Amino acid sequence: MAERRRMGYSMHRKILDEGAVDEMAEKSDSKTSLSEKVKKSMRCSGPRLKNCLLGTVPVVSWLPRYSIRENALGDLISGISVGIMQLPQGMAYALLAAVPPVFGLYSSFYPVLIYFIFGTSKHISIGTYAVMSVMIGGVIERLAPDSNFMIWDNETNSSIIDVTSRDAERVRVAAAVTFISGLFQIVLGLVQFGFVVTYLSEPLVRGYTTGAAIHVIVSQLKYTFGISPVRHSGPFSLIYTVLEVCYLLPQTNVGTLVVSIVAIIGLILAKELNAYLSKKLPIPIPVELLGIVIATVVSWQVDLNGKYGVDVVGLIPSGLQPPALPAVSLFGQVIGDAFALAVVGYGIAISLGRIFALKYGYSVDSNQELIALGLSNSVGGFFQCFAISCSMSRTMVQESTGGKTQVAGALSAIVILFITLWIGALFEDLPKAVLAAIIFVNLHGMMKQFMDIPALWKSNKVDMVVWVVTFILTVLFNPDLGLAASIGFSMLTVIFRTQLPQYSLLGQVPDTDIYRPLEDYNQVRQVPGILIFHSSATLYFANAEMYQDALAKKSGFNITKILSAKKKLEAKRKRHEKKNAKKAKKAAKNNAVDPGKGEPEKEEKDIAIIEIDAEHDPSLPRAIILDLSPVNFLDTVGVKTLRRIRNDYEEIGVEVLLAGCQTGVVDNLQTGGFFNEKVTKSCLFYTVHDAVLHCQSSRKLSQDKEITATHF
Amino acid sequence: MAERRRMGYSMHRKILDEGAVDEMAEKSDSKTSLSEKVKKSMRCSGPRLKNCLLGTVPVVSWLPRYSIRENALGDLISGISVGIMQLPQGMAYALLAAVPPVFGLYSSFYPVLIYFIFGTSKHISIGTYAVMSVMIGGVIERLAPDSNFMIWDNETNSSIIDVTSRDAERVRVAAAVTFISGLFQIVLGLVQFGFVVTYLSEPLVRGYTTGAAIHVIVSQLKYTFGISPVRHSGPFSLIYTVLEVCYLLPQTNVGTLVVSIVAIIGLILAKELNAYLSKKLPIPIPVELLGIVIATVVSWQVDLNGKYGVDVVGLIPSGLQPPALPAVSLFGQVIGDAFALAVVGYGIAISLGRIFALKYGYSVDSNQELIALGLSNSVGGFFQCFAISCSMSRTMVQESTGGKTQVAGALSAIVILFITLWIGALFEDLPKAVLAAIIFVNLHGMMKQFMDIPALWKSNKVDMVVWVVTFILTVLFNPDLGLAASIGFSMLTVIFRTQLPQYSLLGQVPDTDIYRPLEDYNQVRQVPGILIFHSSATLYFANAEMYQDALAKKSGFNITKILSAKKKLEAKRKRHEKKNAKKAKKAAKNNAVDPGKGEPEKEEKDIAIIEIDAEHDPSLPRAIILDLSPVNFLDTVGVKTLRRIRNDYEEIGVEVLLAGCQTGVVDNLQTGGFFNEKVTKSCLFYTVHDAVLHCQSSRKLSQDKEITATHF
Repeated sequence: MAERRRMGYSMHRKILDEGAVDEMAEKSDSKTSLSEKVKKSMRCSGPRLKNCLLGTVPVVSWLPRYSIRENALGDLISGISVGIMQLPQGMAYALLAAVPPVFGLYSSFYPVLIYFIFGTSKHISIGTYAVMSVMIGGVIERLAPDSNFMIWDNETNSSIIDVTSRDAERVRVAAAVTFISGLFQIVLGLVQFGFVVTYLSEPLVRGYTTGAAIHVIVSQLKYTFGISPVRHSGPFSLIYTVLEVCYLLPQTNVGTLVVSIVAIIGLILAKELNAYLSKKLPIPIPVELLGIVIATVVSWQVDLNGKYGVDVVGLIPSGLQPPALPAVSLFGQVIGDAFALAVVGYGIAISLGRIFALKYGYSVDSNQELIALGLSNSVGGFFQCFAISCSMSRTMVQESTGGKTQVAGALSAIVILFITLWIGALFEDLPKAVLAAIIFVNLHGMMKQFMDIPALWKSNKVDMVVWVVTFILTVLFNPDLGLAASIGFSMLTVIFRTQLPQYSLLGQVPDTDIYRPLEDYNQVRQVPGILIFHSSATLYFANAEMYQDALAKKSGFNITKILSAKKKLEAKRKRHEKKNAKKAKKAAKNNAVDPGKGEPEKEEKDIAIIEIDAEHDPSLPRAIILDLSPVNFLDTVGVKTLRRIRNDYEEIGVEVLLAGCQTGVVDNLQTGGFFNEKVTKSCLFYTVHDAVLHCQSSRKLSQDKEITATHF
Repeated sequence: MAERRRMGYSMHRKILDEGAVDEMAEKSDSKTSLSEKVKKSMRCSGPRLKNCLLGTVPVVSWLPRYSIRENALGDLISGISVGIMQLPQGMAYALLAAVPPVFGLYSSFYPVLIYFIFGTSKHISIGTYAVMSVMIGGVIERLAPDSNFMIWDNETNSSIIDVTSRDAERVRVAAAVTFISGLFQIVLGLVQFGFVVTYLSEPLVRGYTTGAAIHVIVSQLKYTFGISPVRHSGPFSLIYTVLEVCYLLPQTNVGTLVVSIVAIIGLILAKELNAYLSKKLPIPIPVELLGIVIATVVSWQVDLNGKYGVDVVGLIPSGLQPPALPAVSLFGQVIGDAFALAVVGYGIAISLGRIFALKYGYSVDSNQELIALGLSNSVGGFFQCFAISCSMSRTMVQESTGGKTQVAGALSAIVILFITLWIGALFEDLPKAVLAAIIFVNLHGMMKQFMDIPALWKSNKVDMVVWVVTFILTVLFNPDLGLAASIGFSMLTVIFRTQLPQYSLLGQVPDTDIYRPLEDYNQVRQVPGILIFHSSATLYFANAEMYQDALAKKSGFNITKILSAKKKLEAKRKRHEKKNAKKAKKAAKNNAVDPGKGEPEKEEKDIAIIEIDAEHDPSLPRAIILDLSPVNFLDTVGVKTLRRIRNDYEEIGVEVLLAGCQTGVVDNLQTGGFFNEKVTKSCLFYTVHDAVLHCQSSRKLSQDKEITATHF
């Protein structure tokens, strides 16, 4: 670095304050008013309307230009692979959502077709998603718990659950919440609120999905151990559930546990093999499909359900069901959950969509994505689907097996339709524990996200705190409330970050116009008689007071004390003057020498000393320069603070100059009433260096004048 | 301005990047670690302990130094004046709080004495406060509504309210919520959370108090008209109450209305007279005291209650009541309200305290104030007081009548004690309508705050929105919930403000090193071949995407398209190479002339053209400089965005440089992994001008090299 040739540069110019720069560069006043902006955005024209229509139904614009030669083969292979994956995942995630497995298949069919028509991402695989499913499961357990469907069994003389009516109610709840969340997404998309996703920062999303994964795991433990704990809902329900599971562990069904362990180990080994062979195989082995086929065959041959009491999937109805209106009466009870589902589903889909858009050089329209997902969900709600988003693992498969357009998704939907119509019924003997095992193995990617913590610790501690807090809030308060709390917290961090700025005094790097914090550099010199104060953050209501305190602390003298001393002095002087006047009167009356004359003289001296202290104290700087370059905006509190600082210090004879204000900040100062006939834009300077030179030159001038004055 | 002599300045230095500056100014690495900071703040020593004790009980440090000669007279007059004001205000605010008037007197006594011992502000008048009283009233109406105390009256054969047991319960509720709010304040003070008040920005506090004043007025209408509407609680209760009052207007008690109108007009006239005479009188006329004395005498003589059915204060017990333990069973139900009371009470007291501290040049300790108020409230809770804060009007009187220390407050408490013990019982015939009139007249200051709206509209629109939203939220959702919602909203404005920055391209003010937005100035020229991009706000998760979009839009070329074209081209080239290799193999095999040789040549040409397009397109700039001077901090999303911008543009041959980073931002870049072996600190420059000169000089170098290369 040191050997690198460094070019020099020379600059000769006048010291410019804000007013002079405005004059020189001819500041233009023309600004587009708000009404004009609104008008512009509302303007309607023919091509614009056409674009809008094409934008709303993207399939119209891209399908006619579909190149069969280039894309068809890749889309076909990819579509079949993804379809095969949708089958076990759909059934497993239906368990998570607490509805019968076949509804997972429906959810992998209708919404995918709708997205094909309206979606703009070519690579993401729409369908069931673990986090969304567990959120739906939470709603269902709250609104349709087992306890609501207890009936008295006359045969065994005990109360049992009426599974049929329970499941029918659960499907109704799922469809209602899905429909409403879809409506939310459509409305958000129509009012162009796609930007809300910007609040879902990466640390937040990763912490959130990891926390949700914990919920997924806990909700599947009952299938793994073959126990039936009471499911809890509301805050801290996870802890209660874990306690309940621990309590019920002695009742574990050994057969189920064995099936679980075998399935998990088998799946992990097969996935490892897949990863190992990935370069040699054109398409990955459908591990999960093989898993459920083998499990079903074994379960059917050995009669796991009858002999060992292993819980199996049970009756799977063939064929599709006619659409039904969502239950309007439930809307009021699910509106909060629906909103959370809408935001989470969109957040996951758009972030994955963007990754692939970036990779393949196209763009996804965030508002259109909202509408596409919204339509998928709301139409899905009519067909008893539960809320969908896109799954990371399926998307990876869709892309890696050569999927190039949305056609791959449509083909996967057709595969699912085929399975639903003719093959689905064959999986009746599949143990639920195997589906739970599939969920566990699919979560390993999310578990890897725990490694974010050390990585973020190294790169950004605040973001690490966001991750950890989001995770904890999600685990404790469930995915819906947890999300809201986490977004609130991550916004608070912005406040905290700007609320606790670093305050420092700047000094000059010798022989340059560069100013750096005195405490960070050894070769930086304070400019004599001038304090340069820098805050690393915007000045606004939350840190205005601290700004003043820090300035007082860093400047090393107590402005309040000096001011109050000055005030007391003035009061004293006034009293003294009054006294003198009285005495003069008396003296005039008495016309005699006043015997107490010595005292006022002494007092006068006192006053003089304090006055000198306050106005010419050599320990006081001549000027204070406030470096405002990191200020993004000023609110009224900020402007008032600056005005107060200026007034206070001017009162004790210290000049206050501002440096480095952006144009927006200058406007804030102006409208906020910072300037008046005494304070003009001439106290604003483009750089700290300008301000420093201004101080030095004006002091020199006044000294020169003084000298001249003494000489004459 | 133009005539002012302007000094010139010359600067000759090397073009310095961040690394070079660090080297030159010798950046020091020593930073105090977190653990050291904690250790330092925990360190305990003798003098420190003594200071701490003196700080906790400030009376110990200032009372021994109390100068009787200087302060006693002022404090005495001021104390008596304030005590006289406390009497009518205390009784009136007790009506607001829905407890019998005598408890307002207790609340003006005990807490004031406690504050005398622990408080640090010398001028504020602690005691009952309208906003707090109406909040307490809300809690009481919720937990002890009239409907809970209906009993059957055998004489009249109708249900009447059991006033005695109702009032006893109401006092219990008030004491409980007051005790808990005091505890909150003590705890917040002990953990040094005094800074929470910084979230209560001035527009927020003013909008809030105005909104609360509306609640106060509405809750007093029933006394003015002599009607008895059902009181509502919860959101929108104000609207329901207003509707109910309108509905009951025909039942107005004419006698009461006449008393109200006479009292209001009389008080306003007397106050105007007071203002007019304020310079001539040493102490103001005790308007309110005169008002209640006259009203009591008239009411007693005319028998307003008996003859006209005017509601009067009723039995006032003489003497003090023994302390009682607050009702623990109520704590759970009032905890939220108590927190709101704690924050509001503290917010009002500290902001008034600071105003006078500033005026008289002393300082109030925000944490000690919290503890003092907390002790006042929690001790008050034992003596059936309701929550207190400080009142603006009394404070003004305390200061203007010459009060100089907390002794004035203590004297006012003694006045109240005297009244409670011997005179209070005389006010039994005072009409409640007169107390309501006192409240109305005292609120005129808050009503004047509506004038903030036009003032803020001129000075700062965002702050005006905060004011208006706070007002509306407070009116609609009551003072407790409204406060929380308003604080949330005012924090969101910080996000909004930084989330919607102004993006602009900068150009050079001719012959200077000053760069300003091109669209704002006429004489600013774009530097040829260099784009300088400026955002007015910090770059972080909420605006990172917009930053990229704005850069793409402002730069005028679509980086995504160019990149995808480049990627396609590369894919094509690869395919082409493969083909060629195959062909070459074939050719080698066949050893014959290939008939289709023309085709690949054409393809090659295509590739070459696109390549030239992408890498030497004259429409592309040579470099992009990102001006990061307004950036306060970078989170991981911000660092990633910068890294992505750098990578993308470098790929199409555009250099990306950063300018104006603060030291903290450089640290963020470093820990966030922005730098690697290829990207060093040499792409960071102190100013935009340094970066521009660097680009120009390096281009010149490379051109020189090229020329040299061609010559040889």
